[in-house]
Amino acid sequence: MLQLLQDYDCWVFDLDGTIWRGNEVIEGVLEALELLRKLGKKVLFMTNNSMKSRGSYLDKCLQVGLPAHVDDIYCSSYSAAAYLDSIGFDRSKKAYVVGERGIMQELAAVGIESFGGPDDNEKRASFSSEMLHDTQVGAVVCGVDPNLSYYKVQYASMCLLLNPGCLFIATNTDARGHFTPNLEWAGAGATVGAIKGVVERDPIVTGKPSPFLMQDIAAKHNVQPAKSIMVGDRLDTDILWGLNTGMATLLVMTGVTDEQLLVAQRGSSNGVKPHFVMDSFGDLRRVAQQALQQQK
Amino acid sequence: MLQLLQDYDCWVFDLDGTIWRGNEVIEGVLEALELLRKLGKKVLFMTNNSMKSRGSYLDKCLQVGLPAHVDDIYCSSYSAAAYLDSIGFDRSKKAYVVGERGIMQELAAVGIESFGGPDDNEKRASFSSEMLHDTQVGAVVCGVDPNLSYYKVQYASMCLLLNPGCLFIATNTDARGHFTPNLEWAGAGATVGAIKGVVERDPIVTGKPSPFLMQDIAAKHNVQPAKSIMVGDRLDTDILWGLNTGMATLLVMTGVTDEQLLVAQRGSSNGVKPHFVMDSFGDLRRVAQQALQQQK
Repeated sequence: MLQLLQDYDCWVFDLDGTIWRGNEVIEGVLEALELLRKLGKKVLFMTNNSMKSRGSYLDKCLQVGLPAHVDDIYCSSYSAAAYLDSIGFDRSKKAYVVGERGIMQELAAVGIESFGGPDDNEKRASFSSEMLHDTQVGAVVCGVDPNLSYYKVQYASMCLLLNPGCLFIATNTDARGHFTPNLEWAGAGATVGAIKGVVERDPIVTGKPSPFLMQDIAAKHNVQPAKSIMVGDRLDTDILWGLNTGMATLLVMTGVTDEQLLVAQRGSSNGVKPHFVMDSFGDLRRVAQQALQQQK
Repeated sequence: MLQLLQDYDCWVFDLDGTIWRGNEVIEGVLEALELLRKLGKKVLFMTNNSMKSRGSYLDKCLQVGLPAHVDDIYCSSYSAAAYLDSIGFDRSKKAYVVGERGIMQELAAVGIESFGGPDDNEKRASFSSEMLHDTQVGAVVCGVDPNLSYYKVQYASMCLLLNPGCLFIATNTDARGHFTPNLEWAGAGATVGAIKGVVERDPIVTGKPSPFLMQDIAAKHNVQPAKSIMVGDRLDTDILWGLNTGMATLLVMTGVTDEQLLVAQRGSSNGVKPHFVMDSFGDLRRVAQQALQQQK
C-alpha cells in the first residue's frame, strides 16, 4: 500500500460511495485525503452525479470539512456542457434538460440557453390533446432526475425525433446511486433508459466511463495518466474510466460494489478488473501516516 | 388480393394505426371488416396497448361502430395476467403495476392482487428521506403509463432488486404509439426502458411480438396459424408476432411504418419482412365486395 503512495502523484476520487454516502462522510476519508495532500499529492474529484454544478459540489465539500478548489472538481453536469462547447454547439439553438439545475447552470456557464429541468416538474401530458415542442432545441441533455415524468420523456423524445440533427447527450448512464445513506436510488440510467426506449437510439455519454474529460483534466492540472490513480466504488464507471484513460485503478467497497460482483467481474473474460481493491479509502489513513513519518 | 381472401380463414387485426388512430377510425376499415365477416372469416383483434382491459376495448369497438365479442379481443394487459396465471403465480404475493387501470383489472380477473398503477400517480420520491417497499411483491407488471414518474420507477426497481425472485413482466416494449391522431407518443418502451436502466435486466414480454398468446387464441378459437393472417402497422411487433407464430402477415401503412423504414427492413439481412403490404386496410373494401359478388 505504501508503494501506491510512491507510484502515483495524482489521485482522482469519485464522491458518492467513495468519499460520502448521501450527506455522511465515510469514516477516516477526510483524514486520509488530508494526509495525501501533506504528501504533496494532487487530489481531484470526479462525480457522475449531475444534480449539482461544480460550484455546488465545492460548497458541499467545504460543508463536510473537505477543503477543495472549484477547478479540482469534475461533475457530469460540467462534462455535458464542456462536450457541447468542444463541438461548437450552435448558440442560436437551445438545450432541453431532463435532470437537475446543475446541468442548466453548467450549460449557462458556456453560453448555452437551456430550459426544462426542474421548471418542468409539474407539467403533465394528456392524450386528450396534442403536444407541441420547440423546434429550436438542438440537444437533449439527460441526467438523474428525481422528478422524471412521462411529460419530460415525451418532450425530449419529440425534440430528438422531430428536430433534424438534435443531439442526445447523457451526463452518464449509472443505474443506481447512494443518494441517501441506506438506499440505492434510480440513477441517470432511468432517464436515459426511458428516452432510449422511445427514440430507439443511444446517447453520447460525456461523464464516466467516457474518456472525454481526461483531456480537460490533463491540460488544466498537468496530469500524466501513467502517474495517476482513479479511486471509486463503481466498476462500470469509475474503474472503467480509469482503465479507458490509462490510469491505475483502486476499487473501494464502501459503495455499490459487493464481493459477489467483484468476483464475478474478475472471473469474466470481459469483466472490469481494478488494479487494486480496498475495503474503504478511510483505511489509507494509517498507511499515509506511516509514509508521512518516513518522509520526516 | 382476392387470393388473400381465399387463402386465410382467420384475420387478426392490430388496433392503433390499423383500425383507428386515437379515437378516429381509418376510412373504409369498418366496411372492410363487415365484408370479411360476411365472407365467413373469423375476425380477432390484438393490441399491445395495455391501458385498458378487454372489456374496455370491447366498449370502444362498439362505440366506434365495430361489432365484437369480448373473446375476440386480445390486449397486452390481458396477456400479462394470462402469463402470470399460466405459470401458477403465487396468489399470496402481489403485483406492483406501472401502467394503467386495464392491467390491474385483468390481474384481478385471474385472482392476482395488485397495487400501484394510477393510484400512485401523485406520489413523489425525495432524497431527503429513505423509501420503503412491500416485500410481498412477486411481480412488477409494466405497460404504457402517461403518468410515469421517478417514484414509480424507484418503487418498481426496489421490488425487483430487493425481493428475491420478483418477476419483471412487460406487456410490451413498443417505442411509440398513435394515442392521438396526429402525434406519436412515448409507449411502454419508456416505462420498460426506465426500469431496465435501473435494474439492469430484461423483462419477460407477454404481448406482441412474444408468441405467448398464440396458444390461447388457437385453443379458444380453433385457429390454424397456416390459415391465418396478422394485419398490423408495426414491423417489430405486429408483423414479427405473425412471423413468430407461423401466420401470414399483412403490413398496412396507416400507422408508424413509413416507406423508408419498410425499404430499410427489406434490404437488411435480418430485417422484418411482411408477406403483403397495403396502403390501408380500408382499401380491402373494394376487393372484398368483389369477392362477395363472386360468392353470390
